[in-house]
Amino acid sequence: MNNDPSASDEAADFQVHENFERFSQKFDIYSRAFWDSEIRTEKTDRFFETYRTPLKKWKTVEGFSQRDYALRNASWHLPDIFAELKESENRREGFLDPFTVHRPGPEDRVPVDSPEQMSREVKHVAKAFGADLVGITGYDERWVYTHAYSRLGETEKPQELPEDLPNVIVIAQEMKKDLLDTVPSALSGAATGIGYSADTLVLLGLTQYIINLGYRAVATMNDTALAVPYAIKAGLGEYGRLGLLITEEFGPRVRIGKIFTDLPLSHDVPKSFGVKKFCETCSRCADACPVGAIPKGPPTDEVYNKSNLVGITKWTVNAEPCFKFWSNQNSDCSICVRVCPYNQDFTGFWPRAWRWLAGTRLRRLALWLVNRFVPGDRVSPAAWWRRGTEA
Amino acid sequence: MNNDPSASDEAADFQVHENFERFSQKFDIYSRAFWDSEIRTEKTDRFFETYRTPLKKWKTVEGFSQRDYALRNASWHLPDIFAELKESENRREGFLDPFTVHRPGPEDRVPVDSPEQMSREVKHVAKAFGADLVGITGYDERWVYTHAYSRLGETEKPQELPEDLPNVIVIAQEMKKDLLDTVPSALSGAATGIGYSADTLVLLGLTQYIINLGYRAVATMNDTALAVPYAIKAGLGEYGRLGLLITEEFGPRVRIGKIFTDLPLSHDVPKSFGVKKFCETCSRCADACPVGAIPKGPPTDEVYNKSNLVGITKWTVNAEPCFKFWSNQNSDCSICVRVCPYNQDFTGFWPRAWRWLAGTRLRRLALWLVNRFVPGDRVSPAAWWRRGTEA
Repeated sequence: MNNDPSASDEAADFQVHENFERFSQKFDIYSRAFWDSEIRTEKTDRFFETYRTPLKKWKTVEGFSQRDYALRNASWHLPDIFAELKESENRREGFLDPFTVHRPGPEDRVPVDSPEQMSREVKHVAKAFGADLVGITGYDERWVYTHAYSRLGETEKPQELPEDLPNVIVIAQEMKKDLLDTVPSALSGAATGIGYSADTLVLLGLTQYIINLGYRAVATMNDTALAVPYAIKAGLGEYGRLGLLITEEFGPRVRIGKIFTDLPLSHDVPKSFGVKKFCETCSRCADACPVGAIPKGPPTDEVYNKSNLVGITKWTVNAEPCFKFWSNQNSDCSICVRVCPYNQDFTGFWPRAWRWLAGTRLRRLALWLVNRFVPGDRVSPAAWWRRGTEA
Repeated sequence: MNNDPSASDEAADFQVHENFERFSQKFDIYSRAFWDSEIRTEKTDRFFETYRTPLKKWKTVEGFSQRDYALRNASWHLPDIFAELKESENRREGFLDPFTVHRPGPEDRVPVDSPEQMSREVKHVAKAFGADLVGITGYDERWVYTHAYSRLGETEKPQELPEDLPNVIVIAQEMKKDLLDTVPSALSGAATGIGYSADTLVLLGLTQYIINLGYRAVATMNDTALAVPYAIKAGLGEYGRLGLLITEEFGPRVRIGKIFTDLPLSHDVPKSFGVKKFCETCSRCADACPVGAIPKGPPTDEVYNKSNLVGITKWTVNAEPCFKFWSNQNSDCSICVRVCPYNQDFTGFWPRAWRWLAGTRLRRLALWLVNRFVPGDRVSPAAWWRRGTEA
């Protein structure tokens, strides 16, 4: 095992430069929406508030009615409980701080003769807890936030992740396609909440399992570190134009979690199935974004604003207009995910055949086919409600 | 809609007599294991304790080693958190008390023009949260515990369920067959914990959804009321010799939850697929039970001990030797579930054909076939670990 994590940058197609700077969660757009007057408005306050409390007046527009918000907000029940459980201790677990795991472990450690065998065992257990995808990679300080962010006081606070946990287990949970395809709608946000709920369940269960084996493990979701670079290094997928992980199994339709541990584990390697080259020929996400937040050109190291990573060449979504659109429509948006050609149900034969084609030199043909037959149109929220409720 | 719930007793094949007495959770065997010196022993204390803390000395017998307990205990992480969250308020939610739902609802109620339509909508939403089975029936006081049980103080406490919630949504979550089939083992208990975790997630999400529509809803798991009679009335399955619900989809391999609500809903009807008559010819559960806790004869209203219901003719498991076996082997047992001919994977063609046959007059042939080809043997825990971990 190579101890320099940047050694596998080439395999992962990462272009990290000498001027690279680690990120502080304070500059995340969701943090800036609280402390940064350039971002915070009445609408951003209302955006967050209406995940928690009912709207003052229900809209009648389809997809934004009471039942749509009722389901979206209910879908956040489980992650919200953990996020708010330790608010009095200035923690927002799963979003700004790692999860507290419930039970202390034993004194004895299960001996690990073979990290390879233990990696397979951890994946098997993760699947038993309902994990959709699991990969394992090494600790890489570059992706760990320099500081956590404190909602109380709206300041940075020290990064609590220990630096001596050499292995990172990355899980990804599918977001439901039928819900997500109704975006823009409040209803589509239920795909996010249900995805985070599954993430939470798997992360806490698997982390407790490792602790019960006698090792240390820290369960993190949106907090503590950037998820996408770890997921790519762990072989879960590739980086796409829309700034998200694109997995072979579910395309960009996943939520990611990560567990840092000293349990001895072997590592996966980055895996390419042609996404980068395909994204170079395709601009459906950029064309569909209502506020032009997704770049149409090649990857650059241009810095749009303080929510950007510095010193890395990649496709970068402009978080400011993106989030402004979320707060204007008063629900999270994932139009880019809906229109992505990789947003397909790959259990079917034709989607799998298409995915193979998109990874070959015939990718322009693949793009023509997907434009012709899988346009990524919005499914009406009324159709989602009707689908399950017809007699 | 008929307001007398006993009117559908015949359709559900319930034989409830005039001397029927409602049950108090104090007499549940898990409650008696704390207050009743006839049940409580050092072994029962250890049984409960080792779900929470590591064993003093790990056993080496297959299925009861550190990794087996590590996984079993980790699988309880989520239900344990909710069970212990309000311990200081003398609540053990999900097991002795209903769940506290996180957010208050709005003032306006979504109008319900058609209870039939709303029943379909609720089932659709339940499935989105991951429910495996959903049925709806009416409130029936007979199955509600007269009193809740307080672990603090070890006494009865008042039943807090309001009496004016006329509808009951019953959900059932599949228990994983591959884990359960390793019983007897600590490993098999992970099927229970993971089942309760899924129950918790669905119950809380669906209940919050109903509250967000402006109605009242109370989420209950093992607390508040008997689950099986509600599940049968809601059309989820039939009652089996082993004293459990037998569903068409997963046989006896489910965990049940129930939501009491005033949301206007239409009701399902009990559904028979031949279980009762099949159980009359089959005694695999009774033959396999290591302590003879399952009756071999026909249903009776005999009362073995104070954990029994009084005034109902049914197959009744003798809870005392059953639970004694659990504490002696230091993990929950479900040998009766493993050997039940309905413990099959009904996604396959042959199991479905067998299930059909078992519901016909050829049930003795079905029994012969299942004895010949599906003996319900224990899968070795080592094989479970190996299955997922072979390179």
